Amino acid sequence: MYRSHSCGELRASHMNTEVTLAGWVQKTRDKGFIIWVDLRDRYGITQLIFDAERTPAQVVEKAKTLGREFVIQVKGHVIERESKNTNIPTGDIEILVTELTILNEAIVPPFTIENETDGGEDLRMKYRYLDIRRNPVKNNLIFRHQVTMQVRQYLSDKNFIEVETPYLIKSTPEGARDFVVPSRMNEGQFYALPQSPQTFKQLLMVGGMDKYFQIVKCFRDEDLRADRQPEFTQIDCEMAFVTQEDVLTVFEGLTRHLLKEIKNVDCDEFPRITYAEAMQTYGNDKPDIRFGMKFGELNKVTQHKDFKVFNDAELVVGIAVPGGASYTRKEIDKLIEWVKRPQVGALGMVYVKCNDDGSYKSSVDKFYNQEDLAQWAKVTKAQTGDLICILSGQKNKVRAQLSALRMELADRLGLRNPEEFAPLWVVDFPLLEWDDETERYHAMHHPFTSPKPEDITLLNSKPGEVRANAYDLVLNGNEIGGGSIRIHDTATQALMFDYLGFTPDEAKAQFGFLMDAFQYGAPPHGGIAFGLDRLVAILGGQETIRDFIAFPKNNNGRDVMIDAPAAIDNDQLKELHIQLDL
Amino acid sequence: MYRSHSCGELRASHMNTEVTLAGWVQKTRDKGFIIWVDLRDRYGITQLIFDAERTPAQVVEKAKTLGREFVIQVKGHVIERESKNTNIPTGDIEILVTELTILNEAIVPPFTIENETDGGEDLRMKYRYLDIRRNPVKNNLIFRHQVTMQVRQYLSDKNFIEVETPYLIKSTPEGARDFVVPSRMNEGQFYALPQSPQTFKQLLMVGGMDKYFQIVKCFRDEDLRADRQPEFTQIDCEMAFVTQEDVLTVFEGLTRHLLKEIKNVDCDEFPRITYAEAMQTYGNDKPDIRFGMKFGELNKVTQHKDFKVFNDAELVVGIAVPGGASYTRKEIDKLIEWVKRPQVGALGMVYVKCNDDGSYKSSVDKFYNQEDLAQWAKVTKAQTGDLICILSGQKNKVRAQLSALRMELADRLGLRNPEEFAPLWVVDFPLLEWDDETERYHAMHHPFTSPKPEDITLLNSKPGEVRANAYDLVLNGNEIGGGSIRIHDTATQALMFDYLGFTPDEAKAQFGFLMDAFQYGAPPHGGIAFGLDRLVAILGGQETIRDFIAFPKNNNGRDVMIDAPAAIDNDQLKELHIQLDL
Repeated sequence: MYRSHSCGELRASHMNTEVTLAGWVQKTRDKGFIIWVDLRDRYGITQLIFDAERTPAQVVEKAKTLGREFVIQVKGHVIERESKNTNIPTGDIEILVTELTILNEAIVPPFTIENETDGGEDLRMKYRYLDIRRNPVKNNLIFRHQVTMQVRQYLSDKNFIEVETPYLIKSTPEGARDFVVPSRMNEGQFYALPQSPQTFKQLLMVGGMDKYFQIVKCFRDEDLRADRQPEFTQIDCEMAFVTQEDVLTVFEGLTRHLLKEIKNVDCDEFPRITYAEAMQTYGNDKPDIRFGMKFGELNKVTQHKDFKVFNDAELVVGIAVPGGASYTRKEIDKLIEWVKRPQVGALGMVYVKCNDDGSYKSSVDKFYNQEDLAQWAKVTKAQTGDLICILSGQKNKVRAQLSALRMELADRLGLRNPEEFAPLWVVDFPLLEWDDETERYHAMHHPFTSPKPEDITLLNSKPGEVRANAYDLVLNGNEIGGGSIRIHDTATQALMFDYLGFTPDEAKAQFGFLMDAFQYGAPPHGGIAFGLDRLVAILGGQETIRDFIAFPKNNNGRDVMIDAPAAIDNDQLKELHIQLDL
Repeated sequence: MYRSHSCGELRASHMNTEVTLAGWVQKTRDKGFIIWVDLRDRYGITQLIFDAERTPAQVVEKAKTLGREFVIQVKGHVIERESKNTNIPTGDIEILVTELTILNEAIVPPFTIENETDGGEDLRMKYRYLDIRRNPVKNNLIFRHQVTMQVRQYLSDKNFIEVETPYLIKSTPEGARDFVVPSRMNEGQFYALPQSPQTFKQLLMVGGMDKYFQIVKCFRDEDLRADRQPEFTQIDCEMAFVTQEDVLTVFEGLTRHLLKEIKNVDCDEFPRITYAEAMQTYGNDKPDIRFGMKFGELNKVTQHKDFKVFNDAELVVGIAVPGGASYTRKEIDKLIEWVKRPQVGALGMVYVKCNDDGSYKSSVDKFYNQEDLAQWAKVTKAQTGDLICILSGQKNKVRAQLSALRMELADRLGLRNPEEFAPLWVVDFPLLEWDDETERYHAMHHPFTSPKPEDITLLNSKPGEVRANAYDLVLNGNEIGGGSIRIHDTATQALMFDYLGFTPDEAKAQFGFLMDAFQYGAPPHGGIAFGLDRLVAILGGQETIRDFIAFPKNNNGRDVMIDAPAAIDNDQLKELHIQLDL
């Protein structure tokens, strides 16, 4: 062992002990007669002192050669510091060095290894191993480990069994794009990497393994939006002989446990709203409920006058911005510009100031009187001093726009405190969603989700209205988990495949094994999957998942550190029975 | 919830309770007036009784339609059994059923869902979800979960951090064949699936994350020998600022912990032998030391007579088989045939019976007298009643042959008790091994393994004799873990790459990131990786890893259940910039 103690361990109580430490040189201060070195390891920083009067001369000489990030080992004894540093746990002591070994030299790192570094994102990614030396990144990785340990312990204590499902599986065109793996031993054939262990966990239910979980890598070959990764980690779960209520209870329990153990936050029973209600109240299926600004639908109280914009709109809807009545004209104009940006896409915004004297001042005073505006304030629950922001247009679009505005304003108003946690179940998701491109309905969750029995009759008449036994767990405006009760009989599954446009042959080729399995006695079952990267980031009070992944890829799916992907040998291609087609 | 209790839970103390159970129909016995049904779930079996006098008539009628593996839910109350079944924990009670719901019907399964099934290997693999319903397979998967929970808890308690390393990495021709993944976004380029997280864990050490572990899938595109899987699971570990001794201590601790917690077996300090000693004493670098039959080298006491076979041999070596003197001539002939099989490859076998009267009877009495044979008995530590089996020839070959014979005989003699555990460290592995095919030395472990400093000078003169700081943990004749202290400086790593035939450009292209990293202050580090599949199988008292994998692949790398790999669409190929080359 190269050390007797870590660099975060020594206290006043260790005074006069002989110790051996090893770590990295964080910084050196050479005052001629005395050299101080901050020695760093994973556990902290300990100050070393090389004192010409008390340290052997050749050791002092060697200390003068130390550069940033050199790896060294020292022996010495623990002494009291003359000027204590109360900012670090080891601040009472320092090590009077008697022996120094340079274990490895270091060239100057491309950015500073400090909490606040001068390295940009690209540089930090290329030298990720140096970035990991920094406390913020290191602590995120340790935090992630703590979360997964808690998840495993909680589920295992509840009799869940972690079962590893295969990574080399079969490609299924439904859903996102698969990454595929050419098979050398099976010419012209390919494995696919799993987008999720969905079918395998269902087969485990058929196999009687009635409480399954797995913390598992999943893969999607998507064009990467910001903060998406081609490989990501899921907490994947499934239960048999359960209803939706049972699944929600268990995973609400897990989430409550994590909030308590990891963040020391106590949560009451999580509120639940339906998808329809979420869309109506927040314009969003993953609403952030840490703050209000609920939507007020204003059609009834706006469409009785000559204001054509509102009269023509499918939906007129507003929110009350706390304290917004004090915004200047310029500030409001900027807000209007903000909602008109292409990313939001509103055509304009109507506003009403709720003045301190109880009067209203709106941008549509020409059309509406004080009584009208008072009605609007009532519907949007605006108080004196608030600003009502109103958008109108096609229902789905205007809801998305107002939701974006609501989130933006909450950010500006500091209402999204990362250390406050507001979990929420959104239930009764639609079974199907219309896809403009292919001009047909797709499974909103996936083709294995069961429709609510009472809605099945709507499948042909009003497919968009069929609700599923599907649910999402939302935390602070982020979907952190989603799941459903599954279809567990061949007939319904066949119906669903048929409905989604699979021919019987296609269904059989892709999912025959699952349909077969259902014939041999499948229990009712359902489950959920949490996005671990996102969950950890949010619990960590941050929103960027990349900061919680040891070796993330960039937006082109590249690992810039190892420079992958890369070309491979022609011999390799030949063995795999493929050639490039550029 | 479909049930109030599991099928393994009810006892006499539950008598008269109203319960709801759900599960699979294991079997039915219809006696006309009374029908008994064994209901099974993951937790056990509970007997249901449908009694024409006490159960509603329509329920009895429905019970008559039940077939094997139907999924049902029943309500009823717990009553005392007339004839108790002491073989199962629920054997004191049965459920007098009042309500019966058929949750799902089942067609007749292709094999019986019993501990001893009538299904062959192929059928069981195709219907793995049914195989998992059987206790032996189900219990293996639960056992695996318990082992991994213990591993994680132990290492986490010792301050190890589980860090997820990427699955989409870069192909490196060194070592086994990679599985590769064409990149859609980076034309003509490929990711590779990791054969192990080796370089990433070393980078984590450079990053200061000084105790790392991960239970992780690894991939090797090898021609599959029996009981190898293209994807397999590793307990992957690395530590910084450690010597070999530290690594052995920690992972001996882990192994001892597992043996104690999982098997309730106490182990003393694990014995250690060098690779050279293992080869000399057991002809094998993973010796099973649950039994003796150590090799006795007989050159000195055999090469002084006219027996040309021995005189010409590089090595004459024997083992004493306990009680083997009683073997008949026929039995011994069969043994000789066995060693002459192509899989073993010996040209013949000399034997000596150590008779009860102290005399010896050998197959080479023509050449050797009683005194000679007594010497042989002394060297092989043969006792009265033993049979000495002697092979001769080229050293490495004859050692492998005698090792095979030793294992075979131990099996026959019942000396390999799967519930006895004999761990062993094998240390001081050679750094390099000669490869006949490429006619050069290869890294025996991998190119990152550090040579013993005192042996470095031998690199040019006697490369085969350079020892590495490399070690294996052997359990009951199986290598369950292997590791090494790594090179941690650029110069030695460059020397090693050069020695292994990499040009500087190749080394840079493939491992440039690691060489770069070493320049920024790499600590001394080393680690180990355990094969989880094998470890779990051995702890489970079995040797077939497939039985401990939920969804294994066959020897052609196929998943016969989902029928993967499979052809993919031309559109998919096009998007990936590849075409088939058949």
